[in-house]
Amino acid sequence: MKLATLRNARPDGQLVIVSSDLARCVSAGRIAATMQAALDDWDQAAPALAALSAELEAGAIAGQPFDPATAHAPLPRAYQWIDGSGYLTHLERVRSLKGSKDDELQSVRPLMYQGASDSFCAPTDAIIVPEEDLALDFEAEVAVIIGALPMRATREQAAASIRLVTFLNDVSLRRLVADDLQNGFGFFHAKPATAFAPIAVTPASLGAAWQDNRLHLPLRIEVNGGLYGQPNAGIGMHFDFADLIVEAARTRALGAGTIIGGGTVSNPHEETLPLRKDGIGFACIAEARTAEKAKFGKARTPFLKPGDVVRIQALGASGTFPLGSIEQGVKLLGK
Amino acid sequence: MKLATLRNARPDGQLVIVSSDLARCVSAGRIAATMQAALDDWDQAAPALAALSAELEAGAIAGQPFDPATAHAPLPRAYQWIDGSGYLTHLERVRSLKGSKDDELQSVRPLMYQGASDSFCAPTDAIIVPEEDLALDFEAEVAVIIGALPMRATREQAAASIRLVTFLNDVSLRRLVADDLQNGFGFFHAKPATAFAPIAVTPASLGAAWQDNRLHLPLRIEVNGGLYGQPNAGIGMHFDFADLIVEAARTRALGAGTIIGGGTVSNPHEETLPLRKDGIGFACIAEARTAEKAKFGKARTPFLKPGDVVRIQALGASGTFPLGSIEQGVKLLGK
Repeated sequence: MKLATLRNARPDGQLVIVSSDLARCVSAGRIAATMQAALDDWDQAAPALAALSAELEAGAIAGQPFDPATAHAPLPRAYQWIDGSGYLTHLERVRSLKGSKDDELQSVRPLMYQGASDSFCAPTDAIIVPEEDLALDFEAEVAVIIGALPMRATREQAAASIRLVTFLNDVSLRRLVADDLQNGFGFFHAKPATAFAPIAVTPASLGAAWQDNRLHLPLRIEVNGGLYGQPNAGIGMHFDFADLIVEAARTRALGAGTIIGGGTVSNPHEETLPLRKDGIGFACIAEARTAEKAKFGKARTPFLKPGDVVRIQALGASGTFPLGSIEQGVKLLGK
Repeated sequence: MKLATLRNARPDGQLVIVSSDLARCVSAGRIAATMQAALDDWDQAAPALAALSAELEAGAIAGQPFDPATAHAPLPRAYQWIDGSGYLTHLERVRSLKGSKDDELQSVRPLMYQGASDSFCAPTDAIIVPEEDLALDFEAEVAVIIGALPMRATREQAAASIRLVTFLNDVSLRRLVADDLQNGFGFFHAKPATAFAPIAVTPASLGAAWQDNRLHLPLRIEVNGGLYGQPNAGIGMHFDFADLIVEAARTRALGAGTIIGGGTVSNPHEETLPLRKDGIGFACIAEARTAEKAKFGKARTPFLKPGDVVRIQALGASGTFPLGSIEQGVKLLGK
């Protein structure tokens, strides 16, 4: 079952069910007006949504064309957005930027931070930067949206709480990372609004692509139309989503609709840019620049600037993009 | 106008208007079912809520008795909770605990972190700790709930966006602060669910107690029935709420219903515990312990333990408590 939220005049938009080929959709309004409403009553809503999805799939309901340009983030705003660090290779590569102090800690326990969740970007929203020189970067990540969990939830509870899977662009202002971390309170200004893919899908309907609490699909990233990276989200994810959820619930209960990010997808490999046609590349610019510095003594890949376009897609087995696309242009505030 | 949210079977509870003496309340359901709904449409909702409040106040509506035990947090869950550091004295006193590195930074720009907002504690909810030895502390703070603001909002926009004022207990697990900050991603496990006062009030109806974007009332804290502190929230607030909002909007827009905390209230003074009857004391245990260490070479005040009770109230001019009380017992998870 694939779900999306269409923009309307309301902050939470309108929940729709989308056909598996992303061609058509139908309002889920008679079951749940919004994605959050569905998540709040998932046990009741999910079977009804699944039945409606089956009707749409079978053609018993014609529905309407699904236009990705009208899609908002699956949750346009959420009560909690926690970004974890599942991929150790990403941390190793950008450690010098982040100023992390304890190498060992990171392989024992995943790092995580609380992100802003009050106003996510739609998949086609521009990335608005307030200044030109903030070292704008993208981070392609997989995320899960979960049901409510008690404090100290078990791994089994955590795995069973995963309602939906999607991906995202964790927009990062690298120039502000050091300030944020040096002041001791953690990420804040360096992490503006996150953008989400148009589609959130149930784990069961991902088939073999969802195993061991990981999404086994490449995230394909293009910058200005050129391939930038296609690391597989199922490779190198040291902490899986159940691990990340368990860690998030160490000292708190987690509310329904909590979004847990897996961290920047990062596969262990030696390659640097320019990317070969069949290469793996990177899911953020910071990793490429670090690799370039190590190999050439100097970073070559520029950060994003106004006018640039970044596209992120999860690449399905048959060459399709089953969760749709994030495609964001970069704009300067007020321009 | 005083607003509260009564618990019901739904996660967002029911919005009510409360009489100025906190004796009676009336459902605001015909205007807005929930606090978030009112905040989403504040320009339409506020005049209607004010009219209903006037009717309740005049006795034209009898309403029902307001029982604080049935009150949830004004926003039982929110899309954003940002805690700032308005009081430099607090930072100076607990710097050794927090491991902050840059003294100067803190007086130029307020520090802030993103807190968990998916499931706040009601004012009378227990503080549930997963383990006994986590150095449980309270932090008494004032907070504002704001309307939507664009990125790079001005001070004037920020001040005008303040819809409601309340106070809170920023529950802190001191033993986990160092871990959280050393790993470089900021506060997370050290900041479990925050508890809020039952009442949120419009700035205008606070009269002289709301000036210069600050609440000029003492926060009175009792632990196990004994006075612990009564610092005035209007004194020593170096960064006022407009400053904190402007800082929060540096790289992002802020959604309606964003909660901005002013940080632990802290007045500059030399006093240490035991508190004199007319003393100022402290709004968190960490400050008292730091002061004790400096004076006696050893901290004397214990952190909270299961069975302890902390009460926080804003003390009104006439000896009343115009925003009600937070009163939380401490419980061990599963006990």
